[in-house]
Amino acid sequence: MYEKEDEKELVEKITMEVLEKLQGQSSAEKPGKPGNSTPPSAVGGIAPAEIAKYIDHTLLKPEATEEQINTICDEAMEYGFHSVCVNTGWAEHCAKRLRGSDVKLCVVVGFPLGATSSRIKAFETRHAIEDGAAEIDMVMNIGALKSGKVKLVEEDIRQVLRACRQNTVLKVIIETALLSDEEKVLACEIVKKSGAHYVKTSTGFASGGANIRDVALMRRTIGPGMGVKAAGGVKSFADAVAMIKAGATRIGTSGGVNIVKGEDVTTGY
Amino acid sequence: MYEKEDEKELVEKITMEVLEKLQGQSSAEKPGKPGNSTPPSAVGGIAPAEIAKYIDHTLLKPEATEEQINTICDEAMEYGFHSVCVNTGWAEHCAKRLRGSDVKLCVVVGFPLGATSSRIKAFETRHAIEDGAAEIDMVMNIGALKSGKVKLVEEDIRQVLRACRQNTVLKVIIETALLSDEEKVLACEIVKKSGAHYVKTSTGFASGGANIRDVALMRRTIGPGMGVKAAGGVKSFADAVAMIKAGATRIGTSGGVNIVKGEDVTTGY
Repeated sequence: MYEKEDEKELVEKITMEVLEKLQGQSSAEKPGKPGNSTPPSAVGGIAPAEIAKYIDHTLLKPEATEEQINTICDEAMEYGFHSVCVNTGWAEHCAKRLRGSDVKLCVVVGFPLGATSSRIKAFETRHAIEDGAAEIDMVMNIGALKSGKVKLVEEDIRQVLRACRQNTVLKVIIETALLSDEEKVLACEIVKKSGAHYVKTSTGFASGGANIRDVALMRRTIGPGMGVKAAGGVKSFADAVAMIKAGATRIGTSGGVNIVKGEDVTTGY
Repeated sequence: MYEKEDEKELVEKITMEVLEKLQGQSSAEKPGKPGNSTPPSAVGGIAPAEIAKYIDHTLLKPEATEEQINTICDEAMEYGFHSVCVNTGWAEHCAKRLRGSDVKLCVVVGFPLGATSSRIKAFETRHAIEDGAAEIDMVMNIGALKSGKVKLVEEDIRQVLRACRQNTVLKVIIETALLSDEEKVLACEIVKKSGAHYVKTSTGFASGGANIRDVALMRRTIGPGMGVKAAGGVKSFADAVAMIKAGATRIGTSGGVNIVKGEDVTTGY
């Protein structure tokens, strides 16, 4: 028993070491800058343009205007991003704008606090899907998790899942910045048990966003069968590559255009 | 026309000057510290204990535990605060705990981004009231305001108002930190026209909270017939008095206990 724990710790240490080295490599091999005549180069075997299909092109800030929302829809279609990710108030508008394209509509639910009641989250989900959402990013009930109400946290996710259609993709945001490592593991286990499809690091509205350590921890906890979405503070092509190497299968970012161009992003989330 | 504008500007300048002087006074006349044998003294004619009826005792952070929620309910009953202000996920729980007391239940809607669709805000409102809410603090659709969609902003409030009962108090958060002065005035005019009862400065989750300048501007815009709630960053008794002198009729704060004790608050919103 004791030895098992030691082994676990050792595996964790080595994993972290390797991941940090990999991230160092990615940062060192800076992709091409804008204005260079050479095309953006691949980092760690991934070319910038290949990243596009990983990206949920995201605009969630409350002051986002219709013009800005239109821009992210148009960019998503131009660059072939996986989806556009918006608040419910913009869902119908975006669905219309994206019609006929391959870009999916991703809508956030119980966002960004996760403290709305389950029936409200379920209602939001139903209406987002009616409006055209193919993917739902819900926030876990973090206060319930911290109060030891594991059953309530799981049932909260299940209620949203029941409001989904058969082909809807459900991601659950655990807001890593607010959790201890132990809570992160527990949160991932609950998400896995609930039947949701992805575990997602962050809303982008807490004190911190995604980091490779958390992404690796989440991937180890849930195993290979589910998705991991890294979101919040993923600003450069090197960041995105590091997240994917750590186990992410989706990237949530407002900087997708710069990422696929191999540029560093200067705008915030 | 030109002279009218000049006069308006002059009135504004003088008002600000007076308010700032008043705030300075409040800060200078520090109320009694804890451990002192003297009771907290009055500032600007208002005694600390009198502030209690102005206070919505607030706990909205996502990681709030059941124990912390219980504490604010118990404190609100002990100190005679106007209400307890929580997310929908805690509404039913708080209603039970506050039963038989005079403390009202205040629940936030479309919080904190205001970017959920109107039907979701209305649904949240109906269920919060079913759960026991007497007051609803909704967030305005800020993105729509910034997109020039004044009708949509007003209709958003009206839909929530229609979901209220006859005696429900509706406050509309305009999130001053995200608005220009011109937008603040427009936002207040829309709230007034919609028939809501209060205009409220802030969610506490944006880059800034309430300040006396905004409270005074909001009071001037809506006139005397409606309420103004100052929320976000109101941390001391002196702050609370300054807000009330500037025109606030309600204070949203997590520091109510320290305020009525005449202490400065050290914990954040």
